[in-house]
Amino acid sequence: MTGGAIRVSEIFGPTIQGEGTLIGEPTVFVRTGGCDYRCGWCDTLHAVDPTFRDTWRPMTAEAILARVRDLSGGRPLVVSLSGGNPAIQPLGELIALGRGEGYRFALETQGSIPRDWFAALDTLVLSPKPPSSGMAPDWQAFEACLAAAGAAPRTVMKIVVFDAADYRFAREAAARHPQLAVFLQPGNLVTGKASPDEAADLEALAARMRWLVETVIADGWFAARVLPQLHVLLWGNRRGV
Amino acid sequence: MTGGAIRVSEIFGPTIQGEGTLIGEPTVFVRTGGCDYRCGWCDTLHAVDPTFRDTWRPMTAEAILARVRDLSGGRPLVVSLSGGNPAIQPLGELIALGRGEGYRFALETQGSIPRDWFAALDTLVLSPKPPSSGMAPDWQAFEACLAAAGAAPRTVMKIVVFDAADYRFAREAAARHPQLAVFLQPGNLVTGKASPDEAADLEALAARMRWLVETVIADGWFAARVLPQLHVLLWGNRRGV
Repeated sequence: MTGGAIRVSEIFGPTIQGEGTLIGEPTVFVRTGGCDYRCGWCDTLHAVDPTFRDTWRPMTAEAILARVRDLSGGRPLVVSLSGGNPAIQPLGELIALGRGEGYRFALETQGSIPRDWFAALDTLVLSPKPPSSGMAPDWQAFEACLAAAGAAPRTVMKIVVFDAADYRFAREAAARHPQLAVFLQPGNLVTGKASPDEAADLEALAARMRWLVETVIADGWFAARVLPQLHVLLWGNRRGV
Repeated sequence: MTGGAIRVSEIFGPTIQGEGTLIGEPTVFVRTGGCDYRCGWCDTLHAVDPTFRDTWRPMTAEAILARVRDLSGGRPLVVSLSGGNPAIQPLGELIALGRGEGYRFALETQGSIPRDWFAALDTLVLSPKPPSSGMAPDWQAFEACLAAAGAAPRTVMKIVVFDAADYRFAREAAARHPQLAVFLQPGNLVTGKASPDEAADLEALAARMRWLVETVIADGWFAARVLPQLHVLLWGNRRGV
C-alpha cells in the first residue's frame, strides 16, 4: 500500500480507449500531472509542462476513486492511469481500493520508473520513446519495470512511430523483449493545440497510419499490431473524449 | 478433415484486420463466395450475390494455402476466413494444413451453419444480424455453432449497429450469451459501391461511431467494446485493403 497525495491533471470519461491493446474498451481516464521526460511531440503537455502545474490538484486515492465511481455510476470498468508519467505518483492504494470494488486498472508509462504496485495492475503498457521524441530509453529501468510487474498484469509495448528511424527503433525494442506483444501507433503531430486546419492534420495522421501499415507488411513483421489513435480520428484533438 | 472444392471470391493481403477482436493484426483474407443471408446493407455483395458467381473460383485447400504462403512470403500470420458466409464451404482441410505450418485462422460467420471444424479455429467471430439487416437470427443454429466450436477457439460476438433497434438487439444477444466478449461496430452504409461523395460517407460513418460510443456509455454497458471499420476510415470502401 503506497499512500500520499496523487497529483491529478484530469479525470474524465467514461469514453472508449482510443489506443493500443484495450482499444474500444469503455474506460475512465485518470491523468496525473508531471513527467520525467520531455518528448518533442508530446500530445499531453497540459499534464507534463510545469507551467500547467496550477491546474494539477493533489487528491487522495479515496477522492479519486469517489470521482471514478461518480463518473461510472458505480459500475466497474477499466480505469486508465496515464499522464505525464503516472509512475511518478503513489498509485498503489488507488489500485488496491478500486480492484476491491471490481474496477480494472491499466497503466501507461515509458518504463523509466519501476514501482512494486505494477504487480497489482491488470494491464501495463510500456511505451519506450523512439528517436523522434528526442528522448533515449533507459533499458535498465525498463527491465526493472518488467521485473516489478512480474507475471500478474498483461504487459505490452506500445511504440509511437513517426518515421523510418522510429520504425527501426521499434524493431530493436521488440527484439529485446520478444515475450511482449507490440502495438505500433502512428505519431500525432497535432500536439494538443487547437489547429488552424484540423482536417489536413487528420489526413496527415491517416496517411502516416497507411505508411506504417505498408512498412510493417513489406517488412513481414506480422507479430506487430498497428493501431491509430482512434479518438483523434473520430473526435480530433479535443480534450475529455 | 473436410475435402472438396472451396468457392473463393478473393484472396488478398497481408493488410491489417480492420474490425473486431483482431483489429490491427496483420492478416491475409480469404473471402469465399456465397451466402445463405441477404442483409439489406451487405458491404460485400460481390461475395454474396449469385450475379457475381462467374468471379468465384473453385480452389483446393492446397491451392488456397499456396496463395496465402505466396502473399505472406511464407511467414505465418493470421488468415481471416470471411465471405459471404464461409461456413458454407468445406474449410477443415485448409485450416488443418495451414495450422501445421504455423498459420492461425479466424472465421467470421453469422452463426447460421455449424461445422465440426470450428473447433480447429484460433478465433471464431459470430455476427448475429440485427433488425436493420432485414434478417432474423436462428438462435438454435447459433447455439449449435457455439457447441461445435467448443472451448478451443476464442469465440466472440460482433454486432453491427445502425440504430436504436439494433442496439436493443445487441443487448439482448449479449444477455443470451454472457460468456462471449461483445464487439459493437457502427454500420457502414456505403455498401461497397463507388461513392459520389466518399468524404460525406466517411463523416457519416464517424458520426455513427460517435453516437454508438455515446449510447453504450449512457447505457453503462461497459462490457461491450466499440470499434469502427478502421480500414474504411483509413482507405475508404476500396477492395483489397
